Amino acid sequence: MNTKVKDVATAALWPRNAWYVACTPDEIEGKPLGRMICGERMVFFRAEGGKVAAIEDFCPHRGAPLSLGFVRDGNLVCGYHGLVMGCSGHAIDMPGQKVKGFPPIKSFATIERYGFIWVWPGDQEQVDPEKLHHLHWAESEEWAYGGGLYHIKCDYRLMVDNLMDLTHETYVHASSIGQKEIDEAPVKTRAEPDEIITSRTMEKVMAPPFWQLALRGAGLPDDQLVDRWQICRFSLPSHVMIEVGVALEGQGGYEADDAMKAASIVVDFITPETETSHHYFWGMARRFGVDDPALTDTIREGQGKIFSEDLDMLEQQQNNLLLYPDRRLLKLNIDAGGVRSRMMIERAIAEENSSTQVTEAA
Amino acid sequence: MNTKVKDVATAALWPRNAWYVACTPDEIEGKPLGRMICGERMVFFRAEGGKVAAIEDFCPHRGAPLSLGFVRDGNLVCGYHGLVMGCSGHAIDMPGQKVKGFPPIKSFATIERYGFIWVWPGDQEQVDPEKLHHLHWAESEEWAYGGGLYHIKCDYRLMVDNLMDLTHETYVHASSIGQKEIDEAPVKTRAEPDEIITSRTMEKVMAPPFWQLALRGAGLPDDQLVDRWQICRFSLPSHVMIEVGVALEGQGGYEADDAMKAASIVVDFITPETETSHHYFWGMARRFGVDDPALTDTIREGQGKIFSEDLDMLEQQQNNLLLYPDRRLLKLNIDAGGVRSRMMIERAIAEENSSTQVTEAA
Amino acid sequence: MNTKVKDVATAALWPRNAWYVACTPDEIEGKPLGRMICGERMVFFRAEGGKVAAIEDFCPHRGAPLSLGFVRDGNLVCGYHGLVMGCSGHAIDMPGQKVKGFPPIKSFATIERYGFIWVWPGDQEQVDPEKLHHLHWAESEEWAYGGGLYHIKCDYRLMVDNLMDLTHETYVHASSIGQKEIDEAPVKTRAEPDEIITSRTMEKVMAPPFWQLALRGAGLPDDQLVDRWQICRFSLPSHVMIEVGVALEGQGGYEADDAMKAASIVVDFITPETETSHHYFWGMARRFGVDDPALTDTIREGQGKIFSEDLDMLEQQQNNLLLYPDRRLLKLNIDAGGVRSRMMIERAIAEENSSTQVTEAA
Repeated sequence: MNTKVKDVATAALWPRNAWYVACTPDEIEGKPLGRMICGERMVFFRAEGGKVAAIEDFCPHRGAPLSLGFVRDGNLVCGYHGLVMGCSGHAIDMPGQKVKGFPPIKSFATIERYGFIWVWPGDQEQVDPEKLHHLHWAESEEWAYGGGLYHIKCDYRLMVDNLMDLTHETYVHASSIGQKEIDEAPVKTRAEPDEIITSRTMEKVMAPPFWQLALRGAGLPDDQLVDRWQICRFSLPSHVMIEVGVALEGQGGYEADDAMKAASIVVDFITPETETSHHYFWGMARRFGVDDPALTDTIREGQGKIFSEDLDMLEQQQNNLLLYPDRRLLKLNIDAGGVRSRMMIERAIAEENSSTQVTEAA
Repeated sequence: MNTKVKDVATAALWPRNAWYVACTPDEIEGKPLGRMICGERMVFFRAEGGKVAAIEDFCPHRGAPLSLGFVRDGNLVCGYHGLVMGCSGHAIDMPGQKVKGFPPIKSFATIERYGFIWVWPGDQEQVDPEKLHHLHWAESEEWAYGGGLYHIKCDYRLMVDNLMDLTHETYVHASSIGQKEIDEAPVKTRAEPDEIITSRTMEKVMAPPFWQLALRGAGLPDDQLVDRWQICRFSLPSHVMIEVGVALEGQGGYEADDAMKAASIVVDFITPETETSHHYFWGMARRFGVDDPALTDTIREGQGKIFSEDLDMLEQQQNNLLLYPDRRLLKLNIDAGGVRSRMMIERAIAEENSSTQVTEAA
Repeated sequence: MNTKVKDVATAALWPRNAWYVACTPDEIEGKPLGRMICGERMVFFRAEGGKVAAIEDFCPHRGAPLSLGFVRDGNLVCGYHGLVMGCSGHAIDMPGQKVKGFPPIKSFATIERYGFIWVWPGDQEQVDPEKLHHLHWAESEEWAYGGGLYHIKCDYRLMVDNLMDLTHETYVHASSIGQKEIDEAPVKTRAEPDEIITSRTMEKVMAPPFWQLALRGAGLPDDQLVDRWQICRFSLPSHVMIEVGVALEGQGGYEADDAMKAASIVVDFITPETETSHHYFWGMARRFGVDDPALTDTIREGQGKIFSEDLDMLEQQQNNLLLYPDRRLLKLNIDAGGVRSRMMIERAIAEENSSTQVTEAA
């Protein structure tokens, strides 16, 4: 059948049976939100009791986007002819119509946790809350968080590559977090069962401007030599958490006492939209100055500016790859993080496909 | 042959042997107008004696759009190299060239009547002025008319659906003509030989804002209960005339005496451009305040605002249908008007195709 | 192989083994320039010793456009991860990497001469500096030059047609250089071994506004009858040089003494970008008022305005041709210049293809 073929084809691009960040709670405040995720047009809204519902953004009546409608009593009312849809994708009501026999549309499991709304775009029979990525910093008072969202017109895997090789900081972010010592320091990459980890340390370097700001935020001097680290952790389906920080020289670096360092986690949730676009939820969780909301704003602004420097590069890289689809790229040792992350993605996709085929044959 | 295949394929989308509104006279005042109608690029201009000519917007010399040229002595001069084209599509003159042997381009029959310029895009052998839709209000002093034109990026049949089911007024036009009572009132749909008619009446309701304005324009109180009616009439190829109005309660509604009601006809000429776009000529013919041009302007402005509310919904509905081409839509009783109108369109197309095939076989 | 097939296919559109204008020196001042020429994405930069290098705008590491990078010590540093590329397309250096084994990217021969940077997009084995078009006016103190660049969304051959039939001046440029006498004057077209020449002379005419300006610039009266000439010269791959001028009546026209005329050369380098777009380097070389830079500016501004009038016509002509790909155009005697120029282009392409096939068979 047509739909199945499409599903299998789509499956080749990203794992489907996984939790992706769909949006943040403020995006569905008082109104539904339409967003395409993993090739599926979805609409998100607050259903009864405040639970977040996600159903197809396609009214079964005449195909209008349900996201143009409004929420009433926890149901979603189509803004064209008033069909009322419930959170499970079933028609609930329509003035003058008997709606029980209406074919349901798809619904998608959601979880609201850690300040995000997560969605499971794949097989709803296989939904598994245990698979949600655990974010310890999001539940601890010892951490503060701030972040944002960019829509980027490139394959989500190019963003994974970008984040799993921070060599680019020297070039793309020369004026903020880049420094010559980065690409001079060798990277170490290793695979854990659920994680790819690639890391770099730089000893006795001057902190670049962004980290000088962080040192000041942490109440530390910004004009002394520091030891700097970057530990990038990829996990399925497409999350990259990067432990970053600087410690005053000789205090143990990553292992230094909290009072001697400014440490944080760069948080990256990369949600595919189409084959050549994605939603990029970026942010920073930090362990210094956690009670200082002005610092949160300053960091968010600085980080937003830094990440916007990647946009043009990534979108033009995508254009180039579309122009030269047959050209093979190089895989250097600095690319090991991205290469192994992609292998992990491909294995997940392959596993989903083989189990799908079994289901279909049955 | 290539052209024939294309013609037959195109024929599947809309009736071709029919009169469509092409433009209004002001659009060709002093200059030619280029417009694609039913997939054909046409240029309209005033030929000798003021008659409107329509020929292909393609100069047979080098393919430049003739609409970039100018009119001289009732002929159309190409703005690139000066080839002079007559209203029948034949080359007339060109400095230093003998043009008699030039292959003609297509010409299209036109009629100027009722304040519109109509064109017959199909087989010019079958042109039949008798088939022109009769507009009694356009020839009567008892009526006044005002209207406008929108270019909409959706299949013209989605606009037919829209107008043949006014349930959407409650949702899309909530602040002007919508009211809760609309979708509570059942619709009646019936087919006449040349017309599909779907109607609704609402008794003892408050007039919504637009009709309050109309009541005041008609010299009637705007704060009393009224009886309201909507009678939508579809006719080929894609015209929808909607009798609408409100009468003071208990005066007979639609049948009430003129002094007791504000009655008008919503006029909709829906001219296909491409498979996913059309020209929408909208307006209102009214029987109240006919000597008040300021009222015409007020109504035009209000109606223009209301109809612009449909644009976003229709264009996003079109996008959704393109994304999910295989999905079947529901046909509820409120959709009967649209469904039957589409059946009438399909029958007309099928008749054209069968007669075309006979011609080709001969 | 894929690339070869593409190359041969591309070859059908334009000669590849020829010198095209790529850019002007100011465009690569202090930074690299990315530009697609004859379907190839190239990046231009100043290499060691000031020589202009042209290599593929595609970093062999991860496919980023090299034009987003920067020049250091005469090499091009990729702005993503710092791969250093030399002017021959070989990787030179990368922090922490051994780059000798990196596969090179293409490089293209360039020549900087006559105020332009020229590139040879085809077979680099066949690069021949002797094939560079000679521009005598660019090396002489008796001439002054000014010009500009337009990006035009049409097949470069439509621009060749445009320039090899100046009949269009009467229509497209009616207010500046057009005049009724142009299309009344017959054209003469002839083929030389390396040139197609089409010419027109008009005797005892009033100079149109642009030429009145030129007459004043040359210190001549602008209100007297003049003899006017236009001699269009096409040469491979796609250059059109047009000798134009006016002389006071009866002084010999084109042959008149310098003191009696305002004479110049309209300079047109037409560089294909894609099948439906090109870079248009236009300008005017003149023999009057050569020491007057303000006149250069005035003429550049006037010429820029005139040539911008062609843009809309050419781009809409291209759209029309794409809509009606099967329609054949007319070839009138005024089109002889364009038709013969296209034949010369086709012969050059055919010759390249036959020699390519031999090479491949070997």
